[in-house]
Amino acid sequence: MPERVVTAEDLAEKMREVSVAEFFEKNRHLLGYENPTKSLLTIVKEAVDNSLDATNEAGIVPDIKIVLKEIGVDRFKITVEDNGPGIIEDKIPFAFGKLLYGSKFHRLRQSRGTQGIGISGAILYSQLTTGKPVKITSSTGKSVHIIELLIDVVKNTPKVVSHNEEKNPGKWHGIKIEMEAEGRYIEGKQSVPEFLKQTAISNPYAKIIYEGPNGKVTFDRVVKELPIQPKEIKPHPYGVELGILRRMEADTQARNLMGFLTTEFSRVGRASAEQILRLAKIENKKPKELTHEESERLHKAIQMVKLVAPPTDCLSPMGEKIIEEGLKKEVEAEYFVAVTRPPAVYRGNPFEIEIGLAYGGKLPPDQTAQLLRFANRVPLLYHQSDCATTEATIDTDWKRYEFQQSGSQLPQGPLVILIHFASVWVPYTSEGKQAIANYPEIIKEIKLALQEAGRRLSIYIRQRNKRRDAQLRRELFEKYIPELAESLEKLTDENRKKIIEGLEKISKKGVKDGKETGNEEESEAAGK
Amino acid sequence: MPERVVTAEDLAEKMREVSVAEFFEKNRHLLGYENPTKSLLTIVKEAVDNSLDATNEAGIVPDIKIVLKEIGVDRFKITVEDNGPGIIEDKIPFAFGKLLYGSKFHRLRQSRGTQGIGISGAILYSQLTTGKPVKITSSTGKSVHIIELLIDVVKNTPKVVSHNEEKNPGKWHGIKIEMEAEGRYIEGKQSVPEFLKQTAISNPYAKIIYEGPNGKVTFDRVVKELPIQPKEIKPHPYGVELGILRRMEADTQARNLMGFLTTEFSRVGRASAEQILRLAKIENKKPKELTHEESERLHKAIQMVKLVAPPTDCLSPMGEKIIEEGLKKEVEAEYFVAVTRPPAVYRGNPFEIEIGLAYGGKLPPDQTAQLLRFANRVPLLYHQSDCATTEATIDTDWKRYEFQQSGSQLPQGPLVILIHFASVWVPYTSEGKQAIANYPEIIKEIKLALQEAGRRLSIYIRQRNKRRDAQLRRELFEKYIPELAESLEKLTDENRKKIIEGLEKISKKGVKDGKETGNEEESEAAGK
Repeated sequence: MPERVVTAEDLAEKMREVSVAEFFEKNRHLLGYENPTKSLLTIVKEAVDNSLDATNEAGIVPDIKIVLKEIGVDRFKITVEDNGPGIIEDKIPFAFGKLLYGSKFHRLRQSRGTQGIGISGAILYSQLTTGKPVKITSSTGKSVHIIELLIDVVKNTPKVVSHNEEKNPGKWHGIKIEMEAEGRYIEGKQSVPEFLKQTAISNPYAKIIYEGPNGKVTFDRVVKELPIQPKEIKPHPYGVELGILRRMEADTQARNLMGFLTTEFSRVGRASAEQILRLAKIENKKPKELTHEESERLHKAIQMVKLVAPPTDCLSPMGEKIIEEGLKKEVEAEYFVAVTRPPAVYRGNPFEIEIGLAYGGKLPPDQTAQLLRFANRVPLLYHQSDCATTEATIDTDWKRYEFQQSGSQLPQGPLVILIHFASVWVPYTSEGKQAIANYPEIIKEIKLALQEAGRRLSIYIRQRNKRRDAQLRRELFEKYIPELAESLEKLTDENRKKIIEGLEKISKKGVKDGKETGNEEESEAAGK
Repeated sequence: MPERVVTAEDLAEKMREVSVAEFFEKNRHLLGYENPTKSLLTIVKEAVDNSLDATNEAGIVPDIKIVLKEIGVDRFKITVEDNGPGIIEDKIPFAFGKLLYGSKFHRLRQSRGTQGIGISGAILYSQLTTGKPVKITSSTGKSVHIIELLIDVVKNTPKVVSHNEEKNPGKWHGIKIEMEAEGRYIEGKQSVPEFLKQTAISNPYAKIIYEGPNGKVTFDRVVKELPIQPKEIKPHPYGVELGILRRMEADTQARNLMGFLTTEFSRVGRASAEQILRLAKIENKKPKELTHEESERLHKAIQMVKLVAPPTDCLSPMGEKIIEEGLKKEVEAEYFVAVTRPPAVYRGNPFEIEIGLAYGGKLPPDQTAQLLRFANRVPLLYHQSDCATTEATIDTDWKRYEFQQSGSQLPQGPLVILIHFASVWVPYTSEGKQAIANYPEIIKEIKLALQEAGRRLSIYIRQRNKRRDAQLRRELFEKYIPELAESLEKLTDENRKKIIEGLEKISKKGVKDGKETGNEEESEAAGK
């Protein structure tokens, strides 16, 4: 029994706003800071993602340098420097010292970051575990600004500790972030070097230099040119929910519904707009004047009108060539397949699935296939079991493509599976951005892509097996040639040496024939 | 190649703050609104959690009524009403129309809600899918306030649409929430009725009335009294990170470090405080005047001093009796075990693990054991595979307790496993609060509790098996009595009837002896 009755007034006194920085400080595992090993990776990932986004957007071929230095027990100094456009003086404190602040959240266009939480979350963690400010050096090509800052957690605002301006005769531009944080260093799976290696695969136009506790690694630029810039698009009406539609009606500058529908959305022309209004039985009035019931009718009518799928120049897929080359560079396999699917849509958001398969060679033949997951070119190293890519891979019937697979497991065999999900909006399962939520439309597309890649690979495998069988048969035949020759010599009185030569000719021809029995499609695919 | 070079100035123009409401509107799957079925459950869960917290805190035995009404295709009206203390007029809009607003975030004390996101998240989802305001009726016992509100998503502030005040002659107090939302109704696993059934198990002092599309169900009050109120505690120094310590030093009212250490933390007395300062080589100065290096020394010294574990009256475990009774009421099994572990600590947060096992009876003998997961008395129905409770259950060797178990799977057999995690801070894997993050300390404690419960259950199972074996032997023996008697009659000339009586006596005595061969510990446990 309570000792004293708590009243509504008592409860009211304790109510207050919680800042988003307080929330994530206490729930830092949501951002990927649940242990020292993962935290170190998350910091590097957030900084590198930003560098790649900024250089891409400014049309600069990226040079990124990452330095990890162990400065105490479980304590690291992390430095990430890029040659991007930099951030202007006024915005530096906010871009780094405020959570939920950025330029990408409202934009429908493929990019690595979207939330405006990543790098400020890293700084929050640095400050939480060391109490120290972070140092940002930035220049847009004019003078260099060196700012040390902390985050005022209760207010979720930056606190600038020092600000120095220096001359920049070399016209350097870019960002350099230096921070200390609790961390633990590993190599191999789920490590910083693994993340950078996979980043190099998906961003072959970037040069990445990494100096870690065990030495220096350089990932050279393999492709000289940046990918085509994705374009920003308007929302597609199919993906707009009623609540959002109501808000858009209230906020629009358009003076009537025709204008509203044709300017605020993609793929709505005059004819479609007229059809929508006719179906909704609403005249062409001011959007702000719609009643709730009229908005509902409008929303329903939109779903009933046939509209073209959203434009896909907002996406920046890697492309089959880059995927194949990236895999070839990093995986010692004998055969490679890459598939880029046509774009699809979930909740009005365009997305595109790409698959790469690497097979055989030095890959271990008896182990579970390795999965390389990417979202908007960012490698995903954690939470594999929660990811839509994993679910789709498990759901695919790999036995049809010459692999063993038991129950709901990944296939077994000498196989690396690369899956790239490119979209204007990646539905991550948490703010830590390590797994993609399993929307049915996404699962379906990944499966289709895997099936196509699997089919192509299986043609190669079957042909290889056929050739190997023929080879085995020939070896067996050749083994008996001397004995056979002896018998034939006795039977025919022919010279044994001549007989052996004849038999060897037959043996070789047999193999050639075996090869030629493959149908044309197979030969073509295998020769690819 | 980009058509036009984007500069740092262009990028700066697009930078802006993102409100936490915008963030969760776009990422609604993080709050548990990824599909219509789960969304309906999440809304009910958030409202019921709040009702139970409010009534508990005010010392009121809860009466909660939930009504779900299908009002269109995938459209529901959800009503949840409680007899709690209500919320005062001024605070109603904020408590419901602002995310990250509440009374529980900063408090170290077991409660269902903590984040200040739950119910406002439900309203955000309702508004997103229907565009309609939510209706809140609240009274603290004085007049009744009826407020309709929307959330201004861009500002994360409530927008009151209407506010009516009515007389309250009956002195009703409590909250009634009415909202419409997109949803889909199911029964069985992961459904609203399942959630309420499990809620009734863990909160047997609550009366819960549920009116769903398929009729009315009442979960009656089984226990008349509320559990003992958990108390608020100060943070334990072991769990305070350097960044937090720095902030506490800056914010404290204490005039010197001795005062700071003894008043702002739990379990730090004068002697411990003196020892900490001596180890840190810091004089008893003003906390605000500590340099960064001194704070680091202080932080290290704290970890080196032996302190008593944090107080545990901040927790409100269910208790073995309630767990056993709850299971008995809802599960048709033959044997029940409950274990409440002593409290433990992770990152300075006290927590306590409780286990209930229900065995045999009408439970299916060949299926995987059913897991009932609870965090602070709230049933967790989703994301079972991500949950620390699942990991610990899989890691436990159930073969030792007479169950089959293959690989990393849950055990097989007629078994229900209830796990309750009670803590001042539950580390959920996402804001949707459906799984507990796998901190090693938590996994370890759950395993210890499962082992204890498993041991107790296995004693019962072994004894039951022994009795069953004896019974089988007896039945076999009895089957041959007539034949045996015939032979003996011939051998001894004794009357066959008498012989049969004698043999039957032996048979019964044999079983009794079999029973008595069980050692005392076993008999005691089985007789429990």
